[in-house]
Amino acid sequence: MKRMRTGEKAATPMVLIGNAASCPDFVYATGFQAPDDAVFVRAGREFMIVSGLEFGRAQRVGGERGIEALTPETLKLKGARRREMSEWIVRLLKRERVGVVMVPRNFPYAAGKRIEKAGIRVKVAAGPLFPERARKNADELRQIKQSQQAAVIATRGAIEMIARSEIDGAGFLRLGGKLLTSEAVRREIGRVLLEHDAFCREIIVAGGPQSADPHEQGSGPLRAHEPIVLDIFPQNLSHGYWGDITRTVVRGSASPRLRRMYHAVKAAHAAALGRVRAGVRASSVHRSAAEALKRRGFKTGEENGRPVGFIHGTGHGVGLAVHERPSVSVNSDRLQTGNVITIEPGLYYPEVGGIRIEDTVVVTPAGWKYLVPCEKRFEI
Amino acid sequence: MKRMRTGEKAATPMVLIGNAASCPDFVYATGFQAPDDAVFVRAGREFMIVSGLEFGRAQRVGGERGIEALTPETLKLKGARRREMSEWIVRLLKRERVGVVMVPRNFPYAAGKRIEKAGIRVKVAAGPLFPERARKNADELRQIKQSQQAAVIATRGAIEMIARSEIDGAGFLRLGGKLLTSEAVRREIGRVLLEHDAFCREIIVAGGPQSADPHEQGSGPLRAHEPIVLDIFPQNLSHGYWGDITRTVVRGSASPRLRRMYHAVKAAHAAALGRVRAGVRASSVHRSAAEALKRRGFKTGEENGRPVGFIHGTGHGVGLAVHERPSVSVNSDRLQTGNVITIEPGLYYPEVGGIRIEDTVVVTPAGWKYLVPCEKRFEI
Repeated sequence: MKRMRTGEKAATPMVLIGNAASCPDFVYATGFQAPDDAVFVRAGREFMIVSGLEFGRAQRVGGERGIEALTPETLKLKGARRREMSEWIVRLLKRERVGVVMVPRNFPYAAGKRIEKAGIRVKVAAGPLFPERARKNADELRQIKQSQQAAVIATRGAIEMIARSEIDGAGFLRLGGKLLTSEAVRREIGRVLLEHDAFCREIIVAGGPQSADPHEQGSGPLRAHEPIVLDIFPQNLSHGYWGDITRTVVRGSASPRLRRMYHAVKAAHAAALGRVRAGVRASSVHRSAAEALKRRGFKTGEENGRPVGFIHGTGHGVGLAVHERPSVSVNSDRLQTGNVITIEPGLYYPEVGGIRIEDTVVVTPAGWKYLVPCEKRFEI
Repeated sequence: MKRMRTGEKAATPMVLIGNAASCPDFVYATGFQAPDDAVFVRAGREFMIVSGLEFGRAQRVGGERGIEALTPETLKLKGARRREMSEWIVRLLKRERVGVVMVPRNFPYAAGKRIEKAGIRVKVAAGPLFPERARKNADELRQIKQSQQAAVIATRGAIEMIARSEIDGAGFLRLGGKLLTSEAVRREIGRVLLEHDAFCREIIVAGGPQSADPHEQGSGPLRAHEPIVLDIFPQNLSHGYWGDITRTVVRGSASPRLRRMYHAVKAAHAAALGRVRAGVRASSVHRSAAEALKRRGFKTGEENGRPVGFIHGTGHGVGLAVHERPSVSVNSDRLQTGNVITIEPGLYYPEVGGIRIEDTVVVTPAGWKYLVPCEKRFEI
């Protein structure tokens, strides 16, 4: 997607509707962790429109950034219009004499039509509303590090738990005599994250054949000598920034093929990181990972109508969203100083399973830095 | 908002975009816990369009309901169109010869405009896309009960924790010698919820003056002889149904005024429940609660420009969203058998604090039933 021209932001008023959970742009613009939907408007000055219940907090948080907090009441709306967010917006845009307004692609259709009906032109933003979100400042890096730290500690705890397990006669893992399941490991990860004020809804603990599907969360008893993919991407519950890490381990010993896969992915991870620095095209980072895997003989394509091999991008930006710009994949974005990106090559074959290794790093003028380093263990 | 006419659903094709976290309607329609945005289309038959990565699971889950899973590839889209969800939709609507399509109010504006551009009329639904969501079937009731059970156990644990605390010379609560804080109680609640596969992002543990703001999550040391509002609304992490409960306790002894407030709220809670049964207007349930509070001398209005008294509705529906239909407030909806609603009157005065008591019940032809009963304790 094309980046917005720098001038466009200042020139065209913008409006967005969102809450803390659904709309990272809203949190980025306002700093307000709105529990329910609220409105942000830039029309020369900046405004937030919230329900009366939220007014006090919106005033306090918005005030720090010079954002004026409004409510349907302070906008002097009456009756049913007080309950209709699109009426809040129209009233303010009219008051500020706005003729054209920019909205994000996912702006609510009904609200967009209502604004049009009021004679205001609605323009969908060609790119992100806040392209500057991709370059993190010192505060943001500190916050992402907090979440990454939680993810690393939880990863280590999970690996320790698997390493401590015993292998029973049938090849299952047991801890304290009981079968060790994906669910049990996931619960322990969740507990550790919560201790660090962080939460991950879709913790992946996928063993054996389940690991061959990169989105599979995993369930049931874990087995020895098979890959176990641990992918943890927690969000801090106070400030909302995310972290992201993946490790793949085998309890017991891996087959020669699995071992070759692991080393190929590790090499691809290193090759991709070796390309990362400000000014480099994201696509060239992705290409290094893909070529490293291909060079080691691992094919990407279709097998029985199912995609196999390196079937996803090399990485993505991390910030107030777990997947944000820049995408480290087939696109023409250039990396910039302050980008926080994951590097996570992987290989997936239904008959063997999946291997993925992921770290989150910050892009620097000369290269990159780990946010929080974490050792890589495989056979444990 | 007006309810959709029953015939409208069958007559007009519909389309919606969403994922498990953002769109309860999507989960309701498909049963698919989509991690990323996906498309649901009803056009005679029902379809789900997902990315290639999700195809296997979408096919499996959709298959159980006769929903056909599609991907950009199976729709034979090429190049950039493969990555654009609105192109997926247009291709399918054209293939199915759809001329008018209904969308929810929050349908993405850019996608709506793209569909219009393809010559298909876009109609915003006047009411909910699935009005039947408000009446829960046996499976849904079982799932809501699971979340409510987790909420009740966590509430009891929190109350026990506060009851066990000691009151120090300065009137602060201490547990094991350490100051007992909102954060510590919240962490314990989160831990218990997670043990029950449930999560609540905004657990409220608000003490003293903080309790006077019904949305305040609470922070810092808790004090004796002041109200502590515990509001816990967890979502089950597997099936996505919510629970909701609030208790207000005082460690030590409440002032006579606070005690009168508590008993008024308890009486309002009982009065509202006394009105609940299928066929009754939700507004009359709300009115009983409001009148019970007024009769006991508790005024609702403004004090120094701030709303005080009974400043919110009596309740809301609970299901795949924590706030859904029917609203138990000033509206003309009639309660129906199978509605799951909260009853949660409250009183809020800045100089005293807040009191709220909330239970979640299912509406029956003759009255109502608790989903999971929980005792009411006040001074502990």
